[in-house]
Amino acid sequence: MTRIIMHGCNGKMGQVISSLVAENDQVTIVAGIDPYMGIENPYPVFETPEQCHVKADVIIDFSNANAVDAILDYSAKTSIPIVVCTTGLSEDQVAHLKAISEKVAVLFSANMSLGINLLISLAQKATKILTDANFDIEIIEKHHNQKVDAPSGTALAIADGINYTLDHTYNYKYDRSAERIKRPKKEIGIHAIRGGTIVGEHDVIFAGEDEIIEINHKAMSKRIFAVGAVNAARFLDGKPAGLYNMGDLMTF
Amino acid sequence: MTRIIMHGCNGKMGQVISSLVAENDQVTIVAGIDPYMGIENPYPVFETPEQCHVKADVIIDFSNANAVDAILDYSAKTSIPIVVCTTGLSEDQVAHLKAISEKVAVLFSANMSLGINLLISLAQKATKILTDANFDIEIIEKHHNQKVDAPSGTALAIADGINYTLDHTYNYKYDRSAERIKRPKKEIGIHAIRGGTIVGEHDVIFAGEDEIIEINHKAMSKRIFAVGAVNAARFLDGKPAGLYNMGDLMTF
Amino acid sequence: MTRIIMHGCNGKMGQVISSLVAENDQVTIVAGIDPYMGIENPYPVFETPEQCHVKADVIIDFSNANAVDAILDYSAKTSIPIVVCTTGLSEDQVAHLKAISEKVAVLFSANMSLGINLLISLAQKATKILTDANFDIEIIEKHHNQKVDAPSGTALAIADGINYTLDHTYNYKYDRSAERIKRPKKEIGIHAIRGGTIVGEHDVIFAGEDEIIEINHKAMSKRIFAVGAVNAARFLDGKPAGLYNMGDLMTF
Amino acid sequence: MTRIIMHGCNGKMGQVISSLVAENDQVTIVAGIDPYMGIENPYPVFETPEQCHVKADVIIDFSNANAVDAILDYSAKTSIPIVVCTTGLSEDQVAHLKAISEKVAVLFSANMSLGINLLISLAQKATKILTDANFDIEIIEKHHNQKVDAPSGTALAIADGINYTLDHTYNYKYDRSAERIKRPKKEIGIHAIRGGTIVGEHDVIFAGEDEIIEINHKAMSKRIFAVGAVNAARFLDGKPAGLYNMGDLMTF
Repeated sequence: MTRIIMHGCNGKMGQVISSLVAENDQVTIVAGIDPYMGIENPYPVFETPEQCHVKADVIIDFSNANAVDAILDYSAKTSIPIVVCTTGLSEDQVAHLKAISEKVAVLFSANMSLGINLLISLAQKATKILTDANFDIEIIEKHHNQKVDAPSGTALAIADGINYTLDHTYNYKYDRSAERIKRPKKEIGIHAIRGGTIVGEHDVIFAGEDEIIEINHKAMSKRIFAVGAVNAARFLDGKPAGLYNMGDLMTF
Repeated sequence: MTRIIMHGCNGKMGQVISSLVAENDQVTIVAGIDPYMGIENPYPVFETPEQCHVKADVIIDFSNANAVDAILDYSAKTSIPIVVCTTGLSEDQVAHLKAISEKVAVLFSANMSLGINLLISLAQKATKILTDANFDIEIIEKHHNQKVDAPSGTALAIADGINYTLDHTYNYKYDRSAERIKRPKKEIGIHAIRGGTIVGEHDVIFAGEDEIIEINHKAMSKRIFAVGAVNAARFLDGKPAGLYNMGDLMTF
Repeated sequence: MTRIIMHGCNGKMGQVISSLVAENDQVTIVAGIDPYMGIENPYPVFETPEQCHVKADVIIDFSNANAVDAILDYSAKTSIPIVVCTTGLSEDQVAHLKAISEKVAVLFSANMSLGINLLISLAQKATKILTDANFDIEIIEKHHNQKVDAPSGTALAIADGINYTLDHTYNYKYDRSAERIKRPKKEIGIHAIRGGTIVGEHDVIFAGEDEIIEINHKAMSKRIFAVGAVNAARFLDGKPAGLYNMGDLMTF
Repeated sequence: MTRIIMHGCNGKMGQVISSLVAENDQVTIVAGIDPYMGIENPYPVFETPEQCHVKADVIIDFSNANAVDAILDYSAKTSIPIVVCTTGLSEDQVAHLKAISEKVAVLFSANMSLGINLLISLAQKATKILTDANFDIEIIEKHHNQKVDAPSGTALAIADGINYTLDHTYNYKYDRSAERIKRPKKEIGIHAIRGGTIVGEHDVIFAGEDEIIEINHKAMSKRIFAVGAVNAARFLDGKPAGLYNMGDLMTF
């Protein structure tokens, strides 16, 4: 059984992870860390990493950017592998994370959901087969009308994953209304639909001669990131030092 | 039975219409007009409108922009209603067409397919119900990689049809990658996907709070424009002078 | 402003409606009725209809089948129109509801969401246009893996709505694996997909010669039934006695 | 360059392959075999295999079941690998094909398209990742209204491919209307939509907790089987004796 320290246990996602772990007999939370103490949990909670001396196999961090450095140092000091789910890290923090990964196993991904990471993996495989056969690649993403960035970070991560298998030779295209030309071959179209309360949808289209393959992912809630974090914790338990990502769970 | 004069009978679409009419016992082609005479048809063919003195109920024009003025004049002179399917008309020609429609019934549409015109009609009705309820409207169109214009004329016709019911108060948005803002309400997003040999697909999305309605049309061949032309001919048979469009067939 | 009595105000949907109404300045809840009193509300709550003497324009009933008869009688006695959202009514109760509707306005529908009722209305219009043109009609519905009935009541309501415009001449087909025949024309295929936590999706497909039209609805939460109930209440305010349904809101 | 003998060169698919090969400088047709001689080709055509003494690297067979045994024997005698695209083989013929494959490379698949075989391969990989995470699997296929069998052979091949990775422990479910039960976990739902002139569409749905992954393939013409046959011929060129299928081209 994988013993978890939950960093950010009293936040929204920390609580979702707590309830997921309670239903799963292959993982358990042995301690929480959170400066906000107002929630009762079935495990001891400490205000700071320093106060926590509980033995554990993996740390899950779902906190905020300000709190990440302290838990990274704690991970390095205690040699407990860490799953970093917090988003919005600065470049310095990403560098910190990479430095730490030379001493302990660190897993970090743009998107923690199992489904999105599987989609990237499948899209990469499709790319290898289909680009030789002259298929064009387009990505459509859909999100709610309050989202300010476009395209989504996940759409870009999908495009980057595909472009990696193409030796980064394809350009991204966000708008075709300004010119009158046939579609260039080495292009990935990326289109951002915004409307209502759509949680998140990503569609990769491979359009060839008289046939089309699409790989599509729909998220119905942010709960899927918690599920991914728990899977990542189980995966990281016992792993040697190194920088891992969700794609490493997609081994088949 | 509707008796048709087929202008442009020896072109690709003229021949598709000929074969459609042959299988339909509510219409018949009584004469063709085409300067190119190399094809054998089950009806008499004349090189110019002037040479054709056959009695008919409707003219279908599927020729090219250069040939349209002569057949419009012929329609006015003979008082035979005309379905104009030729695309790429100049502004002068559209004015000519409107002038003629004061003397004889003229039907003219951006897209001749039954399905696309139904989609526009349904989207207009959905708009009336849903915009009060705060639904956002987005249009996705998909075409083959040889198409040089984006978005498609049909996508714009759909947007215009929707915007007509909104008193033309909504703006069209082709790209969201250049700014970081929440989606403005009075906006119709229009996205052009290009790839492979896709014949034509149009999707209208109404995204609201926790529910989404989509109306989608897929064309599998240009044959659907011929089907629409024959339906339009039957509709126009006996109609008084005036300017009609495919939307007029959508009465329910 | 429409003044509402909320019957079942302390149930899950009653509370959702309360929060919706709080954000909407065209409606207000002037009283609640619920035998369970454990929730604090910004309006007076009565244990039984008899105790409630508050003036109101419409009653919304989102309770349970056992409680429906009493509130129907209250509606008849007070002449306050009623929106009945409770499901699982017996045949006797539906008869009761119809009898009451001779004295007061009663609105009752298989599905209270705006989107589903719009989808039915659009599908009926599409049917009128497309069946003459030889389109085949198929319905796909998708729901979570805990749902025990198939197809969904909503899928059947859609099929019934379509079949109504076809003078009930089409048969429903749930399975094609047992026979080897070409698709009969007068048939509506209905297919029930079950998986994961899908809230509810309904897709009506009109497949013709070389073109396809689809009308699709996706629900992301049951909140949409509350939105529909509030819209229905506003609609019913001031209406004369009679039996109404959500389709009556789809006037365009 | 791969030198091809085209068996059935004067049939519809043989001619499509001929035109594809003419545009591809990595393959060439060095001879055709067809009892019907009425078409002129840019390569010599023989009435029977025995008459053909041209040196070649691969045979493509797109003929009819009656003609398959003779070309299999010719393949074995000449040691030229063979791609068998003909459908409707008897069990005896499949046994013949397997016997021949001990002496020469033979490639045979239920569906020759690149896209469908990629879809099967991707679906198998998704199954390995997602079934542990409790995703439910459903397949929807869509074909034209003249097709008499349901579900399609391709849908069954997809289901079999998925079930292979599940040790054949899942059952296929074609209809849920006859019973009232929650969805059993070890089940693959298979749904056959029939309408209009749909060429062929296959959709594999993995529905989990709050997320859905779909892999979808659309065929727009039968030309894709010709493209697959040419790819298979290039793959088989130089391969040792053995029984191959299109899945073997999906190595990544």
